[in-house]
Amino acid sequence: MTALAQLKSRLLEIDNIRHAADVLRWDQTTYMPPGGAAARGRQLGTLTQLSHERFTDPETGRLLDAAARETAALPYDSDEASLLRVTRREWEQSVKMPSALVAEMNEHSTLSYQAWTTARPANDFTAVRPLLERTLELSRRMADCFPGYEHVADPLIDFSDYGMKASKVRALFSELRAGLVPIVRAITSRTPVDDSCLKRRAPEADQWAFGLAVIKRFGYDLERGRQDKTHHPFMTKFSLGDVRITTRIREDDLSDGLFATLHECGHALYEQGIDMRLEGTPLAGGTSSGVHESQSRLWENLVGRSAGFWEFFYPEIQRALPRQLGDVARDAFYKAINKVERSLIRVDADEVTYNLHVMLRFELELDMLEGKLAVKDLPRVWRDRFEADFGVPVPDDRTGCMQDVHWFAGPIGGAFQGYTIGNVLSAQFHKAALAAQPRIPDEIRRGEFGTLREWLRENVYRHGSKFTADEIIQRASGGPLTTGPYLDYLWSKYQPLYGLEASERQPLSVG
Amino acid sequence: MTALAQLKSRLLEIDNIRHAADVLRWDQTTYMPPGGAAARGRQLGTLTQLSHERFTDPETGRLLDAAARETAALPYDSDEASLLRVTRREWEQSVKMPSALVAEMNEHSTLSYQAWTTARPANDFTAVRPLLERTLELSRRMADCFPGYEHVADPLIDFSDYGMKASKVRALFSELRAGLVPIVRAITSRTPVDDSCLKRRAPEADQWAFGLAVIKRFGYDLERGRQDKTHHPFMTKFSLGDVRITTRIREDDLSDGLFATLHECGHALYEQGIDMRLEGTPLAGGTSSGVHESQSRLWENLVGRSAGFWEFFYPEIQRALPRQLGDVARDAFYKAINKVERSLIRVDADEVTYNLHVMLRFELELDMLEGKLAVKDLPRVWRDRFEADFGVPVPDDRTGCMQDVHWFAGPIGGAFQGYTIGNVLSAQFHKAALAAQPRIPDEIRRGEFGTLREWLRENVYRHGSKFTADEIIQRASGGPLTTGPYLDYLWSKYQPLYGLEASERQPLSVG
Repeated sequence: MTALAQLKSRLLEIDNIRHAADVLRWDQTTYMPPGGAAARGRQLGTLTQLSHERFTDPETGRLLDAAARETAALPYDSDEASLLRVTRREWEQSVKMPSALVAEMNEHSTLSYQAWTTARPANDFTAVRPLLERTLELSRRMADCFPGYEHVADPLIDFSDYGMKASKVRALFSELRAGLVPIVRAITSRTPVDDSCLKRRAPEADQWAFGLAVIKRFGYDLERGRQDKTHHPFMTKFSLGDVRITTRIREDDLSDGLFATLHECGHALYEQGIDMRLEGTPLAGGTSSGVHESQSRLWENLVGRSAGFWEFFYPEIQRALPRQLGDVARDAFYKAINKVERSLIRVDADEVTYNLHVMLRFELELDMLEGKLAVKDLPRVWRDRFEADFGVPVPDDRTGCMQDVHWFAGPIGGAFQGYTIGNVLSAQFHKAALAAQPRIPDEIRRGEFGTLREWLRENVYRHGSKFTADEIIQRASGGPLTTGPYLDYLWSKYQPLYGLEASERQPLSVG
Repeated sequence: MTALAQLKSRLLEIDNIRHAADVLRWDQTTYMPPGGAAARGRQLGTLTQLSHERFTDPETGRLLDAAARETAALPYDSDEASLLRVTRREWEQSVKMPSALVAEMNEHSTLSYQAWTTARPANDFTAVRPLLERTLELSRRMADCFPGYEHVADPLIDFSDYGMKASKVRALFSELRAGLVPIVRAITSRTPVDDSCLKRRAPEADQWAFGLAVIKRFGYDLERGRQDKTHHPFMTKFSLGDVRITTRIREDDLSDGLFATLHECGHALYEQGIDMRLEGTPLAGGTSSGVHESQSRLWENLVGRSAGFWEFFYPEIQRALPRQLGDVARDAFYKAINKVERSLIRVDADEVTYNLHVMLRFELELDMLEGKLAVKDLPRVWRDRFEADFGVPVPDDRTGCMQDVHWFAGPIGGAFQGYTIGNVLSAQFHKAALAAQPRIPDEIRRGEFGTLREWLRENVYRHGSKFTADEIIQRASGGPLTTGPYLDYLWSKYQPLYGLEASERQPLSVG
C-alpha cells in the first residue's frame, strides 16, 4: 500500500468523524429537544477531539512527507498534488496550535456563547465584557502560534480566507468604500421605497413551497439534499451526496425566508457541484469563506433580486400568494425587494449598505487585535463609528456591538471579511459567466439556470478546495479580485431604480 | 483520580461515540436523502469501530479490575457495584469475540440486508439462501466464542436477554402455547369481528395529533423527546434527555399508526424514567429486550387496547376524526381494535396470535443452530409448521420465512424470544402494579396514567440496567417470570369480547 493510499484512508476516517459531528450539529439546530443539549455538547466534544487527535498525529505528517515523495512528478493541478498541498497546509495550521489552546478556545467559546444568548436580549454588555476580553487574549495567542505574520490578524484570516492578508483586505475595503458611499448617499437622498407589500401576512406552507420550487429550478438536487427549518439559516454537508440547507419563514415578511432559501441554496450548489472524485478528502469542500459567500450572494442577489428573474417568477409568486400579491405590480414588488436604507442590523441590510456593516466590524477587529481599542471601549467606539458611517444613532448595544454572534462564538479576527469579499466576487464571477455565455440573461428571464450553473460548476464548484481563492478567481475571471464589477453591478441596477444622476457616482478619494 | 473515576470517564467517551452513531442512524431512517447513503455507511462504520476499539482496549479491563478493588465493600445494588458488574459482563462479551469476527458479521449483515430488501419483494429465496447459510455459520462461530454453553443459542440470547437460556425459553413457550392454543381455537370458531370502521380514510395530520395527545397524557416528555415519521417505527435514545420515537401513519388504517405510537412510547417511557444518576454509563438503558418489550406492549395493549382507556379517549378520537368515527359505537370500535384472527404476518398480528408467530421463529432458530434444519429446507419447513400452527397456508416466502428482517440483518439466534417474553412480562408487571395501586384502573378511565407510570418508574424504569431481567422481575412482581398473569389477562379480556365458555380455556397438556 502506497503512502498516498494510507494517507487517503486516514483522511477518510477523519472525514467520517468530522461529518458525523456535522450531523449532530444539524440535528442540534433543527430537531433536537431542549433536554438533549447537555449530552450533545459532550458528544460533539468527543468527536471533535477524536478527529483533531487523528489529524494532528505525527503519523499524518510522516504520511504527508512520504506521499509527497511518491507524487513529486505529478502536475500542480492534479488531484493528488492538490490533496497533498492543501492537506499539508491544513495540517500545519493544526499542529502549530497546541491542543490545550484549541481546547481552551472551544470551552471558552461555549461559555461565551451561552452568556451572549442572555446578555444580548438584556442589553448587558458588562456581562460579556470579561469574556470578550479573554476571547481577545486567546485570539492573539492563536495568532502568535504562527510567528512571522505581517499583521496579527493574518493567521486568523487564513483559517477562513487563506492568503487574504489584513493589508489586502484593507486596500480592497478602502476602494470599495470610496465607490459605495456616494451611491448610498445618492439613494438615501431619494424618497424611501414603499415595501409594505412584503409585510402582508403569508402562510408558512405557501412561502415554503414557492422557495422550494425556485431552488429546484436553480438545480438544487433534492436527491442529494433537503431543506429544514431553523432560527438561523445555514448550509451544511455530510457528504457530497448529502448537502442540506435550512431556512426560516416569517409569516409577516414574505421576502425574508425566500431570500434566505436562495442564499443557502447558493452555498449548496457550490458543494453539490464538487467533483465526486474528491469525496472523502479535505478537497471536497468550498475553498474559502469569501468564495463560498460569493455563491450564496450570486444566487440570492445577482440572480434572485434581478429584474430578469422576476419576469419569470413574478406570475408564479402571484399564483402562490394571490391574496398577498395579486394586486401588486411587478415593478412595485421589484422595488420593494431592492429597497436600500440605512439600518442598524447587518443581517437585515440591503446589498448596497451591507458592506459598510462588514467594514466597520473588520476595522474594529483589527483595532482590538492591534491593541488600539480596548474591549471596554467597544460599545462607545461602535456607536461613534456607526453613526459616522450610517448617519443613524445606535440606541443600545443589543443593536450595536452585541448584535452578531461571531465574536461570542469564536476568535476575534477573520470572522467578517469573507462576507464582503463574497459580495465583490459574486459580481466578478457573474460578469465572467455572462462574458463566456451571453445567453444567460435570456435564460434567466425564462426561469432557466442551467447555463449559469454549469459555467460556475465548470469554473468554480468542481474544483472544491484544490485551488486557493486567488487561484480560482484568476482561473474563472481571468484576473485578480477587484471591486470594479461589483460597483458597476450596483450602479447599473440602482441607477435606474432610484433615478440616480451620473454625477452622483463620483467616488470619494481614497485616502 | 481513582480507577473508578478513570473508568467512568472512559465509559463516558465511549457512550458519546455510541450515541453519536445513534443520531446518524436516526437521521438515516427519518430525513436523510438517498444520496447520503454511501457516506453514511462509512461514517457509521468508523464510529462503531472507534467505540468498539476503545471499549475492548485492555486498559478498560485494567480499570475494571482496579475499580472493583476500590468498590469491593459497596453493596450489590449500589450504583458503583452495579456499574462494575454490568460493564464487566458487557466487556467480557466484547473481548471474547475477535474483532475480525465482529467486522465480518457486520459486513456480511450489510450485504445480506441489501440482498433481502430486493429479494423479499421478488419472493426470491434462492438469492438470499447462500447469505443466510453464511449468517448461520457466523452465528455459530459467535456462539463458540463462549465455550461451556448449555445450548449453542444461549450466548446469542445473552446479547439481548441476558440470563435467558434456550431451555428456559422453551419451557416458558411450551407452557404458553398450551394455554394460548385453546383460546385461539375458541376465538377463531366465532364469527369474525367487523373492523371496517378502522379502514376509513383518515388524514395523517389528524391521526398524528391524536396519537401525540395520547402519549403526552401517558407522560412522554416532549422536552426530552420528539416523534418523527419512518417506514418502520422505533425508539432511540441519544441521552436520557433525548429519547425519540418514530411512527408511521397509514391513511387507510387509523389504528396502525396510533398503536405504533403507543408502542414506541412505552419503550420511551422506560428510557425517560431511568435515573439521571446513571447518565453516560452502560447502566443508562433498559436491561433486556424482554423487559423493554414488556413496556411497549404494556402501554400499547394492556393500557391502549383496554376498555377503560377508551372510556376516556373514545369521545376524544371521535372529536379528532368525526367523519370516520362519528357514527361508530364505542363498543364496535373496541371490538375492532381487538380483532383476533389467524394471519400470515407477525408484525400485523393481534395480541393473542402474536406469540405463536414468535414461537415458530424461535424453534426454527434453535433447529438451524443445532444443525437439525438446513437453510435450504427453511422455506418448506416454515410453510409446513406455519400451516400446522395457524391452519393457514403460506402462499410464498415473501409472507413466509422472508417476512422478518432479523435473520437478514444480524445473527440467527436470540432475535425473537424477547417479543414474547415482553408480552408475558407486560401482564406480570401490570398485575403487580394494580395489586400495589388498586386505583390505577379508575385513573385510566379518567385518562390519567400517573400512578401506573410512577409505579413502573419506581420498580422498573429508574434502575436502567443495574439489575438483570430476572432480578427486576423478582423485585417488581415478587416472583420469577411466569405465564399465569398473561394467560389470565388474555382470558379475562377476550372471554367477554367473544363470548367464550369456561370449558374452552382448558389448556393443552404440555408434552
